[in-house]
Amino acid sequence: MRKGKQTWEFENEPAIIATGVTGGPFEARGRLAEDFDILHDDLWIKEQSYEKAHQRLIEEAVQAALEKAGLRKEDIHFFIAGDLINQLSPTNFAARTYGIPYFGIFSACATSMEGLALAANILNHGNAEYIVTGAASHNGAVERQFRYPTEYGGQKPPTAQWTVTGAGFAVLSSKRANYPNEPVVSRATIGKVIDMGMNDPFNMGGAMAPAAAETIFAHFQDTGLDPAYYDLIVTGDLGKIGRSTALELLEKKGIKLTEKQFQDCGLLIYREDQPVQAGASGAASSATVIYGHLLKLMKKGAIQRMLCVATGALLSPLTVQQKETIPCIAHAVAIEMKPGRMH
Amino acid sequence: MRKGKQTWEFENEPAIIATGVTGGPFEARGRLAEDFDILHDDLWIKEQSYEKAHQRLIEEAVQAALEKAGLRKEDIHFFIAGDLINQLSPTNFAARTYGIPYFGIFSACATSMEGLALAANILNHGNAEYIVTGAASHNGAVERQFRYPTEYGGQKPPTAQWTVTGAGFAVLSSKRANYPNEPVVSRATIGKVIDMGMNDPFNMGGAMAPAAAETIFAHFQDTGLDPAYYDLIVTGDLGKIGRSTALELLEKKGIKLTEKQFQDCGLLIYREDQPVQAGASGAASSATVIYGHLLKLMKKGAIQRMLCVATGALLSPLTVQQKETIPCIAHAVAIEMKPGRMH
Repeated sequence: MRKGKQTWEFENEPAIIATGVTGGPFEARGRLAEDFDILHDDLWIKEQSYEKAHQRLIEEAVQAALEKAGLRKEDIHFFIAGDLINQLSPTNFAARTYGIPYFGIFSACATSMEGLALAANILNHGNAEYIVTGAASHNGAVERQFRYPTEYGGQKPPTAQWTVTGAGFAVLSSKRANYPNEPVVSRATIGKVIDMGMNDPFNMGGAMAPAAAETIFAHFQDTGLDPAYYDLIVTGDLGKIGRSTALELLEKKGIKLTEKQFQDCGLLIYREDQPVQAGASGAASSATVIYGHLLKLMKKGAIQRMLCVATGALLSPLTVQQKETIPCIAHAVAIEMKPGRMH
Repeated sequence: MRKGKQTWEFENEPAIIATGVTGGPFEARGRLAEDFDILHDDLWIKEQSYEKAHQRLIEEAVQAALEKAGLRKEDIHFFIAGDLINQLSPTNFAARTYGIPYFGIFSACATSMEGLALAANILNHGNAEYIVTGAASHNGAVERQFRYPTEYGGQKPPTAQWTVTGAGFAVLSSKRANYPNEPVVSRATIGKVIDMGMNDPFNMGGAMAPAAAETIFAHFQDTGLDPAYYDLIVTGDLGKIGRSTALELLEKKGIKLTEKQFQDCGLLIYREDQPVQAGASGAASSATVIYGHLLKLMKKGAIQRMLCVATGALLSPLTVQQKETIPCIAHAVAIEMKPGRMH
C-alpha cells in the first residue's frame, strides 16, 4: 500500500446479503418509517432500563438480518459492532446473546462504517465467510449519558441534534458469486482524527464537517475517481449546519457536489415537522438510514453507487467538562450495485 | 473459512519491528521496571488531569516505538488502539496528535490483542505496510471511573486487582523479509463473550477465567496444535484467583499446562511486596508486559513461541449498578521467533 494512502479496494467485492433495522417511536413517525423492519411504540421496549432497551434494539436488528439471510448465528464468523454507551455495554450484552466471536469498535457515530470497512476487509481476503456488523443508539440512554436525562426537558439550541433510537445491522458474505444481485462493498477510506478547535457539544454537526470533508477528499485523492462517479455521497449525522459547512469545505478543495448528490442521513430520517433542531445524530443515524432506506433504493435501481461517510464526534462528558475541544472522525465506505457480474 | 472456526493464520507473518512501553511510579518499583522505555515518578506526568496524563503515556509509547523503528508518523498507514476510559478519550486525543487513520477498538483489558489481531490481519494481505497498535490504562483515571477516586483510600477485598498505569504499543510491518530477526505474528483467535453469571466487580480475574479458557481451547481446536507447541501461554490480567481457575478449567477440557508454561501478565509486572491484592489489571497489563518484557525475552532466545491471551471484563459502572452480571472476552495472538527464515 502506497505511503499516505488511506483507502482499501475490495476486488473480491464482499456482498451485503441482508440487513436488519429497528427503531423507536420517534422513528416510527419519521419520513423513513417504512424502511424499518421493527418499530417500537415506546422507548422502553418492555425492558427495565433504556440500556436494556438499547440492547434489545441491537438483538432484534441482528435477528432480522439473520432471518432475511437465511442464516443462523452459528453460521457467522465475526460480529463487529459498537454503540455510544460507556464501555459499549448494550453491544457487549448483545454479543453475549449471540455468542459470535466479537470485535468491539468505537468511532462514536462513525462506528457503522468503521465496522463495514473492517468486515469488508476481512471478507475480501477470505478470512471469514459471513460477518455481521452494525451500530446502534438509544435516545434516552445517550441523551442522559452525554447531556441530561430527557425527563428534565432541558432546552437545546437550534444547532443541537436528536439522537436516533435504533439499530442497523448487515450480514456480509465473502461468496459474492452466490449473491449476484446484492450490493457489494467496493472500497473504504479510513479517517484521521480532525479537530478544528470547536468545543460546543450542542453543535456537533459543525465540529464534524471538517472530518467529513477531509475523508471525502482523501477518498478521491486515493482512488483517482471523479466525484461524479457516485450517484450519492451521504454523510452520517452532520445535520443542516454541518452539511452546508462540509459542502463549502469540499468546494474549496475542488470537489464540487450538487445539492442532490450530497445528502445527510441525519436530514433524511425525520419529517420537517418533527422537533429535531438541526437534524438527527447518533450511531444509529447512518446505520439505520444506510442499511434500511438507502440499500432499498439501491435494490430498486434508484442508486447505483454511493459513498457512505459516517461521521463521529469523539467527545465525552468528561472531556467537555475538562474544556477540551472536540476531536472528530469520518470513515467512508463505497457500496455499489453490480448486477449480473459473476466471479 | 470453516464454519465455527475463530482462528486466523497469518502465512505472510507480519513482523513486530519495534515497541514502546511507558509506565508510572508503581510500575517503576515493579519487577519489570527495566523493560519499560519511559517511567514517570508521579501519576500526573506534568498534566492537569489523569486523563491527559493517560493520553501522554500513549503518545510517548507510540513515539518510542516509532523512533526505534526508524519511522515517522507519516510512514504509518493505520493506528488501531483503545483504552478503558469512556469513549476512549485518551486514545482519541493521542490519535489526534498523530493524525494517522484511526480505528478505535474496545475489548476492555483484551483491547491489546484485539488490536494486534486486526493489525496482523490487515498486514498479512498487504492492506498496509506499517501499522501501530496498542492499549493503555492509568490507575488514577480508571479507578475513579470504575470504582472510587484513589484519594478516598477505599478498602478493597483480596480478590481486587491493581490497574496498571502505562501504555504498550507496537509497530508492525507487512515486509517480513526486511526484518528477518524480528518476532512475527503467526495466528490469532478471536474470542466470544462468555458470562458465567459472576457479578462482583472486585473479582474480575475470576469472572474472566472462563473466557480465557474458552479462547485457549478454541485456539487448539482450530489449529490442531499441541499445547506443548508454545513455550509460554500468557494471559492478560487474570491475577492469582483467575489464573488458577483458568488452569483448572483448561485441565477439564483436556488441556494440561505446566505451572511454568502458563503465566499471567498481571502476576509478572509487580513485586511480591507491592500491595496489589490478587495482581495487576487494566488494558496496559498485557500491553506493557507483552510488548516490553516478553518480546525482550523472545529476542534474547528465552522464548520461541508464545500465545498471548488478553482478557477483558466488559462491565461498566452502570451495568454493575443495574445488577447485571459481567460479560467477559479473551483474544489470543501467537507471536513467534523464526530467525533467518526468509520470504
